[in-house]
Amino acid sequence: MNILLLGSVAQSGRAVLESRLAEMPRGAEITLTDAFATDPRDTLAGKFAAADMIVCPAYTAGYPDAPRLKMLHAPNAGLDSIDFDALPDGAAVCNVFEHDIGIGDYVMAGMLRFTVELEARSERFKALDWQDTPRLGATPRRELKGARVLTIGYGSIGQEICRRAHVFGMQVDAVTRTPRDFDVMPDRMTDYAGLPGLMAEADFIIVACPLTDETEGLVDAALLSRAKPDAVLINVARGPIVDQHALYDCLVAGGLRGAVLDTWYHYPNPGDSPVKPADVPLWELENVVVTPHCSGWTAGLIERRFGVIAENAHNLLTGSPLINQVWPE
Amino acid sequence: MNILLLGSVAQSGRAVLESRLAEMPRGAEITLTDAFATDPRDTLAGKFAAADMIVCPAYTAGYPDAPRLKMLHAPNAGLDSIDFDALPDGAAVCNVFEHDIGIGDYVMAGMLRFTVELEARSERFKALDWQDTPRLGATPRRELKGARVLTIGYGSIGQEICRRAHVFGMQVDAVTRTPRDFDVMPDRMTDYAGLPGLMAEADFIIVACPLTDETEGLVDAALLSRAKPDAVLINVARGPIVDQHALYDCLVAGGLRGAVLDTWYHYPNPGDSPVKPADVPLWELENVVVTPHCSGWTAGLIERRFGVIAENAHNLLTGSPLINQVWPE
Repeated sequence: MNILLLGSVAQSGRAVLESRLAEMPRGAEITLTDAFATDPRDTLAGKFAAADMIVCPAYTAGYPDAPRLKMLHAPNAGLDSIDFDALPDGAAVCNVFEHDIGIGDYVMAGMLRFTVELEARSERFKALDWQDTPRLGATPRRELKGARVLTIGYGSIGQEICRRAHVFGMQVDAVTRTPRDFDVMPDRMTDYAGLPGLMAEADFIIVACPLTDETEGLVDAALLSRAKPDAVLINVARGPIVDQHALYDCLVAGGLRGAVLDTWYHYPNPGDSPVKPADVPLWELENVVVTPHCSGWTAGLIERRFGVIAENAHNLLTGSPLINQVWPE
Repeated sequence: MNILLLGSVAQSGRAVLESRLAEMPRGAEITLTDAFATDPRDTLAGKFAAADMIVCPAYTAGYPDAPRLKMLHAPNAGLDSIDFDALPDGAAVCNVFEHDIGIGDYVMAGMLRFTVELEARSERFKALDWQDTPRLGATPRRELKGARVLTIGYGSIGQEICRRAHVFGMQVDAVTRTPRDFDVMPDRMTDYAGLPGLMAEADFIIVACPLTDETEGLVDAALLSRAKPDAVLINVARGPIVDQHALYDCLVAGGLRGAVLDTWYHYPNPGDSPVKPADVPLWELENVVVTPHCSGWTAGLIERRFGVIAENAHNLLTGSPLINQVWPE
């Protein structure tokens, strides 16, 4: 059985895949091949033709034929880059999570950035400016205790944020399509109809829902106008859930205290010259912290994710039930 | 009854004290006076002579006589600036905590600073450098899960750190004078004899013990030499617990990955020209984050602390038992 590792993210898991497959009864029957979607068409066509399984976050109608393909395995959670209609008949699609841990770290780092202001204080003190010391009458700073965090979307990421926020003494509100019992319960929960109401009370607004037709542009000018001017927005989901122009205008006008943005509207391919991540210069604003879609990108993530992918490859080979199958539904 | 608020820290609680005392049965009998230790000697002597209670983190033999003094109330936890022998006979000493919450935020911000590296990544991406994105093959970063934090001292600060670290999936080791049952239990606990052993396994070393004759210089060259070169040291206790020369040499030689330092060896008084916080330029090192003793200095802290101090003032007036009395022992 041949697995095609398509792109950097898939290839980052090669060492983990090799080591896990080596421990499995029939792992030796599985071979790994690397490719990039930008490779010469002929080379790519040959590799697609030989692939029983492809590991890649995307699948489009423009890809070469893959007549042997029995499984597309996303090395990530989001399915918004997969054109299901373009897949060969009978090919299953699976995804993986495990990024909630790294993203939980990232979101707490973002909330603490706007609370403790560690780096800004350090910069002042490195210039021997003692203005932040209480001994000389400094204004006290904020603390997370008592602050209210709203998570838009309440999947594994929202729940990880809730667990962490609670231990800091924060209140947690969650918006989810179908309010129900979760392992980790927020203080308040509503469906999307309740979002504008909770938005008005939030100190931190975390965008953590999938990008779908319903959520594209969900955080628009009208919703942002309900936020407290003191609130901070953090987007770890997908750029287009937030209307970039509305967010930019809101930040410039002081409608939000700041933002932490990890997900974007434009992305580079290998070899591209510097790509601007949005149509408006969100990354140039002083009260905005930006990262290039790496909030969950940790060594632990790769270990966990490619452990699942190795198991699923072996399941495919042995005809066992697949983990996290999302297609056919 | 007259309370003397001596210095900036004590005076920062004036509004809270006034509002809490106003709600107490005999609160109206209590008056508040401001002073600084650097005031003209005559003015200061008059205010000391009239004080039934002084709120101040320090007490020295050099202060004017305070014949009416029945209580010195530290507006903080540490007692290392109080010369108990200099106090008038019969004067009680009380302290307050409540800083564990803000310091818990600060320590987590420090650990996340060396894990998520949010600001460093933001700086790169603001220059449209996409090097940190997995799409272009970025090396994955660390996560807190699985990392080991050692807290030297296991009072209210150590326990707050433990609660938070656990929810991030970290292992917690604690060193305390008398290992015993605590509300929040670490994974491993030893007395100070076990410190060198735990030091060698820690990814984060938190100094969170009181400054006493036993702990002064505790973290010396010999102990630092046991740390992993990948470890980060965070001092939120008192500067002199860590030998400044040994720490500087260790950081310069790569014996630690970095440090977050909030507490120092030299402090300014109001009106001083820029004071260097240490004899060695720790604050100039690139892998060191520095703040001027403000890790717990939050609006919530002042609310909580001066609520306790108001209650204790009323207790003193009415002859009720005092909260957090530390002297006479």
